[in-house]
Amino acid sequence: MNQPIGVIDSGVGGLTVAREIMRQLPKEKIVYLGDNQRCPYGPRPVEEVRSYTWQMIRYLLKHHSIKMLVIACNTATAAAYEQIKKELNIPVIGVIRPGARSALKVSRSYHIGVIGTFGTIKSNAYQQALLDINNESVINSLACPEFVPLVEANNFSSPEAYQTVAERLNILKSDAQMDTLILGCTHYPILRPLIQKAMGSAIKLIDSGEETALEVSTVLYHKNLTRKDRSQPVHQFYTTGSAQMMEAIGGQLLGYKPEVRTVRIDME
Amino acid sequence: MNQPIGVIDSGVGGLTVAREIMRQLPKEKIVYLGDNQRCPYGPRPVEEVRSYTWQMIRYLLKHHSIKMLVIACNTATAAAYEQIKKELNIPVIGVIRPGARSALKVSRSYHIGVIGTFGTIKSNAYQQALLDINNESVINSLACPEFVPLVEANNFSSPEAYQTVAERLNILKSDAQMDTLILGCTHYPILRPLIQKAMGSAIKLIDSGEETALEVSTVLYHKNLTRKDRSQPVHQFYTTGSAQMMEAIGGQLLGYKPEVRTVRIDME
Repeated sequence: MNQPIGVIDSGVGGLTVAREIMRQLPKEKIVYLGDNQRCPYGPRPVEEVRSYTWQMIRYLLKHHSIKMLVIACNTATAAAYEQIKKELNIPVIGVIRPGARSALKVSRSYHIGVIGTFGTIKSNAYQQALLDINNESVINSLACPEFVPLVEANNFSSPEAYQTVAERLNILKSDAQMDTLILGCTHYPILRPLIQKAMGSAIKLIDSGEETALEVSTVLYHKNLTRKDRSQPVHQFYTTGSAQMMEAIGGQLLGYKPEVRTVRIDME
Repeated sequence: MNQPIGVIDSGVGGLTVAREIMRQLPKEKIVYLGDNQRCPYGPRPVEEVRSYTWQMIRYLLKHHSIKMLVIACNTATAAAYEQIKKELNIPVIGVIRPGARSALKVSRSYHIGVIGTFGTIKSNAYQQALLDINNESVINSLACPEFVPLVEANNFSSPEAYQTVAERLNILKSDAQMDTLILGCTHYPILRPLIQKAMGSAIKLIDSGEETALEVSTVLYHKNLTRKDRSQPVHQFYTTGSAQMMEAIGGQLLGYKPEVRTVRIDME
């Protein structure tokens, strides 16, 4: 029960999920691993994404005996979640189901929008999760390939950034009954003010990271896995790429500068 | 997996929770049992509440082989949840933890208000659940014994009803940092518009029923218990009291008139 929660991502985007877990569950300890060297996963074939994801998992199981795995990456969740959930004997949480579940809680029209990277939208994973729970939901999916570059260029408050976001989201406005929009990419919460402005205040935005942390809380509790150790948890951060880069971005996202170590996982 | 979810309550209040489960999980089947004959549980000694709650559980286990138990009653959850969770070998969801969890998700100040019946507030169960997850949360609890009678008298839109609600909630306003209020009684969502108006639009209201249904969704999924049968579920309703009364109130709350049967459970 005092073991850490493992959080994996193709890079630094999953730090928004880790941050939410730290905020909602301040007693839990996290081990974060980002595969920055091979990031982004989006354009890679599904089999390659699966193989890289398994390398991260084997690394965390071997070196950190994690009690739960969080796949904080929409692309990896879409490609490998079902398989990983079946094979591991610890609970596995992806970022897709929690967002779908929460959208079906807050929506009243069950007309739900989903935005994400091209890979996530193409996988249809949100659509499947939503229909699996409520087969009368109406889903409008839209890939927004322009959004991640805005975040990575630190350009998320300029008028040009707003223009890019607003133009893209205009496509979703054809469904006047839509009342809920899932931010299906870990980078998008950073664009939240622009997205809310572009969609209008009546549209409820679902932050997958927030909902994933809530699901982590629920599952830890019902599987009797909450941490009992009363000491302040010390989180650990690993990357397959530049430790310095993750320290810099982590400092911005987490509110404190994490100490990051570079590791090799391609032998796992 | 195709067995029903059992939902128990001291009376009809838990129908608001059942309604949320039906709304969020339209494929799941529910068996509802209300102990109207011995309602309300609020003023009874804890041992009596436990004993009555166990009678309801034994009835559902014996006659309906439920796959999950939802205790849709704050008083029974406060009195007996931990014990029941330990002793049953099916998942047990109460109404207190889901509300606490969700409050810690939406709050930014972690100053959280809780309103409930006298029994629920006195039990300190919300306080314990909140502090168990985040021991820096600041909790303001207030019993609102005037609220349930308003609902039961169908008096929830008059100026007098608003006055009663506003006067009582005024006590909570001394904590200017409070940003979230948990509606810790299954009757309160019906008063939601009055409560929101009295507290101001900046206060986020947590509906324990909505959050409980979300937790049901999460736990069913992670314990591989979701219903696979594609037929439309037919819910069942039982009461220890007047079937006619539950049919009337059920019709208002559920949007369709349920068929209710009266049963004896005191021999269980």
